[in-house]
Amino acid sequence: MAMTITEKIFARASGQAKVTPGQLVDANIDVVMCHDVTTPPAISMLAERGIDRVFDPEKIVVTPDHFQPPKDVKSAELHKRLDDWAKRHKIKYYYKLGRAGVCHALLPEQGHIRPGEVIVGGDSHTCTYGALAAFSTGIGSTDLAASIATGKLWFRVPASMKFVLNGSLPHGVYSKDVMLTVIARIGTDGALYRAMEFVGPALAEMSMEARMTITNMGIEAGAKNAIIGFDEVTREYLDGRLKDTSEYTVFESDDDATYTVVEEFDCSKIEPTVALPHLPSGGVAIGDCAGMEMDQAYIGSCTNGRIEDYRIAAGILKGKEVAIRTLIVPATPEVWKQAKDEGLFDVFYDAGCVISAPTCGACLGGFMGVLAAGEKCISTTNRNFVGRMGSPKSEVYLASPATVAASAVEGRLADPRKYL
Amino acid sequence: MAMTITEKIFARASGQAKVTPGQLVDANIDVVMCHDVTTPPAISMLAERGIDRVFDPEKIVVTPDHFQPPKDVKSAELHKRLDDWAKRHKIKYYYKLGRAGVCHALLPEQGHIRPGEVIVGGDSHTCTYGALAAFSTGIGSTDLAASIATGKLWFRVPASMKFVLNGSLPHGVYSKDVMLTVIARIGTDGALYRAMEFVGPALAEMSMEARMTITNMGIEAGAKNAIIGFDEVTREYLDGRLKDTSEYTVFESDDDATYTVVEEFDCSKIEPTVALPHLPSGGVAIGDCAGMEMDQAYIGSCTNGRIEDYRIAAGILKGKEVAIRTLIVPATPEVWKQAKDEGLFDVFYDAGCVISAPTCGACLGGFMGVLAAGEKCISTTNRNFVGRMGSPKSEVYLASPATVAASAVEGRLADPRKYL
Repeated sequence: MAMTITEKIFARASGQAKVTPGQLVDANIDVVMCHDVTTPPAISMLAERGIDRVFDPEKIVVTPDHFQPPKDVKSAELHKRLDDWAKRHKIKYYYKLGRAGVCHALLPEQGHIRPGEVIVGGDSHTCTYGALAAFSTGIGSTDLAASIATGKLWFRVPASMKFVLNGSLPHGVYSKDVMLTVIARIGTDGALYRAMEFVGPALAEMSMEARMTITNMGIEAGAKNAIIGFDEVTREYLDGRLKDTSEYTVFESDDDATYTVVEEFDCSKIEPTVALPHLPSGGVAIGDCAGMEMDQAYIGSCTNGRIEDYRIAAGILKGKEVAIRTLIVPATPEVWKQAKDEGLFDVFYDAGCVISAPTCGACLGGFMGVLAAGEKCISTTNRNFVGRMGSPKSEVYLASPATVAASAVEGRLADPRKYL
Repeated sequence: MAMTITEKIFARASGQAKVTPGQLVDANIDVVMCHDVTTPPAISMLAERGIDRVFDPEKIVVTPDHFQPPKDVKSAELHKRLDDWAKRHKIKYYYKLGRAGVCHALLPEQGHIRPGEVIVGGDSHTCTYGALAAFSTGIGSTDLAASIATGKLWFRVPASMKFVLNGSLPHGVYSKDVMLTVIARIGTDGALYRAMEFVGPALAEMSMEARMTITNMGIEAGAKNAIIGFDEVTREYLDGRLKDTSEYTVFESDDDATYTVVEEFDCSKIEPTVALPHLPSGGVAIGDCAGMEMDQAYIGSCTNGRIEDYRIAAGILKGKEVAIRTLIVPATPEVWKQAKDEGLFDVFYDAGCVISAPTCGACLGGFMGVLAAGEKCISTTNRNFVGRMGSPKSEVYLASPATVAASAVEGRLADPRKYL
């Protein structure tokens, strides 16, 4: 009867004692995340079938983020449809412009993610929430429509892979470097429809924010979900934050649970890593790419747009000037406020950075820092596909906030360790 | 031999003792303002003719502002062409991303505008600089190309109209209300190809920032330029700010100079004014439109995106919450920094506003707050033409920062005086 944490969550959500990988289950959804791009089509699909209901106005969390504030008429119309719908259904947790933020940073921060629960969202990086010992995954607009209306969805229970993060992270090396190293080893389809379960002493030392950087990028290896077990870091993060204060259920993988594979990493050997274009699996040590000229640096997104990320970047940028255009895009209003209050904005301003309102923005080539043909961007985001941040002839290099900050100072890919 | 201040500036710029309205003159240009939308086409026009020169790299001021940071691939390409060109010609005053701001706020603030000089720019609101007793006007890309390459341009000397601002502004009434009242009286072609010269005791009491709001909107009455004579306010604004510290020439209109018309205004009678859609001449007193529901409030632009504007808005928003989405878009990095340092951002944040990086953005329907069909925006900007801020089915209402802030609180057009 041994199960992994992911399997246990599915057993609970589908009302069964046990589930096994490959099994189809009907699961109750605890939270549905809705943003401005995929939700309006889902609403339309429902409307075309004469359905205008939500399963529970307290379990749907709405935030415009991709194109917020609206970047053009088309996105303004999406926002308007989302707004009309959220108001009509009295959605309790509707983060309007001004309180809206990048969904995957906002939902954990605002206490919507609880261990042991099932969260789906109309966005591929919904896997982020697994850092809080929950099952979470991204779904398309069709599944989103079904989730919104019924609060249920079928899943094929994913088999699990175990990723053991041994050792301690060296100075100047962060969870982003770890995850880029993981994906470089297994490839962008290395965890296809699998649960990526992360364990190990290096993980235990990581903050919740650092952990979310790891689970955020599970989808970049093709994973159905990424998940990290509950510990004291989880408890501390959740305390005083949860909207639903009823007791939550902590599941943990059984010692004899089944994994398709166990991958071990000695984190003490990991170096600052840069994923070269055009795949997140293109990670190489900074020593093998330092010196390449960049045109733009970007610090933000659901991967690395949290307060810890800006503290790290500010530590490097303090008293320096950026050599290339550098965008600071805090992921949520609270991160924005805190970075301002801590004086990080002064550091960024003095260094010559642009400081944006929270948005997904340029991460997906949306707005606020789109790339022209031939331009190269060193970025804390999670995807460097062809044309991801703009022109199909532009290039995106993925790295940690420290590496991006160091590269911003030099105008070229640079090793952050010399600035620390 | 009597001349107006505008005529005297043209006489100097064309090396003549006297010029008269209607006369064609070849004038030397003192400053050419270049931004990201109209300059790249000008560069291309020159390149098509095999011309790749600038008349003086110290007299061309470059700032991307309309779509900065780049809002899409097309604007990114514009920025790249501007960037390549500015670097190639060693443009001395090139405000790159991070230091770039809305041109008409940035150039005076950074000390590029000197009394008695001729400034042209590839933007219709270049008339703003007339607040500093200079001649300035907007030109198209063709004239911009000629100006960039030769530093000369021909003009037909405009006849002057005199606008006498008598009395004192009542509490809650600002220069924006005055200018909306002026345009409401004379119409959007009321000053066609004329110099609008502003004088009078109400003007004398206005800060330089308030004056720039007036000259900024000269083009909304069709004016060739708008101009305000030099006084102590001008001197104080310029002191310590000018990049070129050589002596400048102060011209003033002769008492017996010729005006096509003299319009008198009793400013003590002016009320908070809102220009209804779809013309800047649609100004009515707030009492005649209060209560109309709005969807968005916008505080920014070359008209009202200066520090004084944010102080006024914060005075109203302090301790309150906005009822509609409200965008704070400081016009320049310095305004942004100052508003932050003065604690105004805390007021705006607590009220639920979005605070953007400096950009022209949504004022022209660019990005950062574009309107959907059916939406209404109360805005501190200068134009409310059909579709100006987004969908052709959206509506823009122009007002002062105070009226916009009060309307943001109520979600409807509101009289700011009750909050002051």
